[in-house]
Amino acid sequence: MSAFLSSRFEALEPYVPGEQPRDRSYIKLNTNESPYPPSPGAIQSAAQEAQSLRLYPDPEHTELRALLAKKYGLSPAQVSCYNGSDEALMLCFMAYCDKHRPAVFADITYGFYKVFAQVNGVPYRIVPLKDDFTMDVPALMEAEGPLFIANPNAPTGLALSASTIRQIALARPDRIVVVDEAYVDFGGESSVSLLKECPNLIVVQTFSKSRSMAGARLGYALCSEALTGDLNTLRYSINPYNVNRVTLAAGAQMLRDDDYYRACVKKVISAREETARALSEMGFFLTASRANFLFARHDKLCGEVLYKELRQRGILVRHFDKPRISDFVRISVGTPEDMLLLTGAIREILEERQ
Amino acid sequence: MSAFLSSRFEALEPYVPGEQPRDRSYIKLNTNESPYPPSPGAIQSAAQEAQSLRLYPDPEHTELRALLAKKYGLSPAQVSCYNGSDEALMLCFMAYCDKHRPAVFADITYGFYKVFAQVNGVPYRIVPLKDDFTMDVPALMEAEGPLFIANPNAPTGLALSASTIRQIALARPDRIVVVDEAYVDFGGESSVSLLKECPNLIVVQTFSKSRSMAGARLGYALCSEALTGDLNTLRYSINPYNVNRVTLAAGAQMLRDDDYYRACVKKVISAREETARALSEMGFFLTASRANFLFARHDKLCGEVLYKELRQRGILVRHFDKPRISDFVRISVGTPEDMLLLTGAIREILEERQ
Repeated sequence: MSAFLSSRFEALEPYVPGEQPRDRSYIKLNTNESPYPPSPGAIQSAAQEAQSLRLYPDPEHTELRALLAKKYGLSPAQVSCYNGSDEALMLCFMAYCDKHRPAVFADITYGFYKVFAQVNGVPYRIVPLKDDFTMDVPALMEAEGPLFIANPNAPTGLALSASTIRQIALARPDRIVVVDEAYVDFGGESSVSLLKECPNLIVVQTFSKSRSMAGARLGYALCSEALTGDLNTLRYSINPYNVNRVTLAAGAQMLRDDDYYRACVKKVISAREETARALSEMGFFLTASRANFLFARHDKLCGEVLYKELRQRGILVRHFDKPRISDFVRISVGTPEDMLLLTGAIREILEERQ
Repeated sequence: MSAFLSSRFEALEPYVPGEQPRDRSYIKLNTNESPYPPSPGAIQSAAQEAQSLRLYPDPEHTELRALLAKKYGLSPAQVSCYNGSDEALMLCFMAYCDKHRPAVFADITYGFYKVFAQVNGVPYRIVPLKDDFTMDVPALMEAEGPLFIANPNAPTGLALSASTIRQIALARPDRIVVVDEAYVDFGGESSVSLLKECPNLIVVQTFSKSRSMAGARLGYALCSEALTGDLNTLRYSINPYNVNRVTLAAGAQMLRDDDYYRACVKKVISAREETARALSEMGFFLTASRANFLFARHDKLCGEVLYKELRQRGILVRHFDKPRISDFVRISVGTPEDMLLLTGAIREILEERQ
């Protein structure tokens, strides 16, 4: 840091995204992208919208919000769109946490929550997962302050039911509950249906995973009109034109092409289950992931070694050098072909070490 | 605001972008967009990159930074890219202002500076422009705290020379000077050449105006490696994938298509001068704008009435209901055809009122 940087950022530890190496081509199973492109229609909409780039995008995201509202049975005034769901989450930390209202989240969860708390200069309270990596629901209900739950959780893939989220949200109606549903389409249960009953609930979703648009940056928040108003107050105070034209156009078309999206999700779930079976047979322990990744540990192969051995073989997975999970690797689910190459490589690595 | 929103945002007044009406089609001279599309090559690059939207963008913006570094004779470590230059400016307020270091800016300038100060909860000091709307340079030099100068300024279009910026930056080497050069390509003098001499200087530019890409959202900051490091620390703590793939690809090609860009800028400057002459002949007072807009006042026609009369005739310009400038309208420079329609409409409005 320079001598000019405000001292309030002295201890800030930025988020570290999964590596994006450029030295050679890899089978990329490290950042939970979809192995399938957006729908042909969405790609075409994007290409066509590129003609209109000279004009600012619609800061109200009118078309996309109308489509999302219709999809979820909400009013457009309950929908707001962001430059990736990270931006939505960041604004939730900014809007609802302060020195009197510490953020609450699990010890093992999306690594950005801690960074968002730090960069906003707000305190946070960590509620450890139980030994089996499930959420400690009573402890979450008891802790005061805005609650951030990734559901399904990352990198474990474990999910809470909507009825549990309901219980948590109703237990303390005076605190915000943000449910980060980045991975919900791969087998989780969405909390969107609880919005009527829970005015303290914010559901955040993304086009980066199940909708194959990580490169476009598009996320959205679903909540009450009042909370949407708060988020828009901040959005219009930071970056009103936060979502570009091409992304708005591609996103709208991707929502219309629902069958395509469903087919992609189905393929990913099927490859996940297939791969989980193969890894189990090789002696791996796996969490019951409802996401587009697997979280796996082998008694005879520590996470870091497996990560490195796979990397040498041209396959990227993600290893977290963190307490409680350093034995694991997180493997994004690719195409069936990718996953056969992965399991083949792992089999080879295990055999070499016998 | 909801009951949940942190009280620190109680007094926040969000930025109000220029209107984007959807009721009919207008000649849009209200948000300083380019009247020309991006280069055919940039549009094609955007269309092609849409194929790869399933993958996250490069969070280091490697290709684009290399091109920008080459263009300005800097090292890539002195360049960072943003989701529009608004994001760069926001991070500068966040990084360098705090309760001990109030932001400093003019009373009449880009309206977002005040909002950025407010949303970051930092104090600010306003240095009024002189009566002729030029910057009060001695007062700017004297004021302590990070300084934000739009150069050319908006909505006046008036520019400071690089040697004046140098004087300001050298006068207080212990404070950051951010020069917002959104409009510099239309006749201003860039301060990029001062970076070697002034380690406290940050130059912010955008692809939204002279590079015809307002809809793509792309801005960048040029400064020392140390300051770039600060900005990246914040960027990686807020939104590492801040610029999407399509925008990165289109931006890179737009930089390569330098002749196209120069030709567009030339046409805009020529239409600006032509329109300025026509308006002067009709009795308007105009500032000596070096930007892609004109700032004009007529003794017999107040700004608000002119704005409304033009709007009725299908032409949008911008009126600011603010002290000192409420008599003016700001007119973005469009194509020669747009500007003929504009001057024709104004002539008509003036004649009707005689």
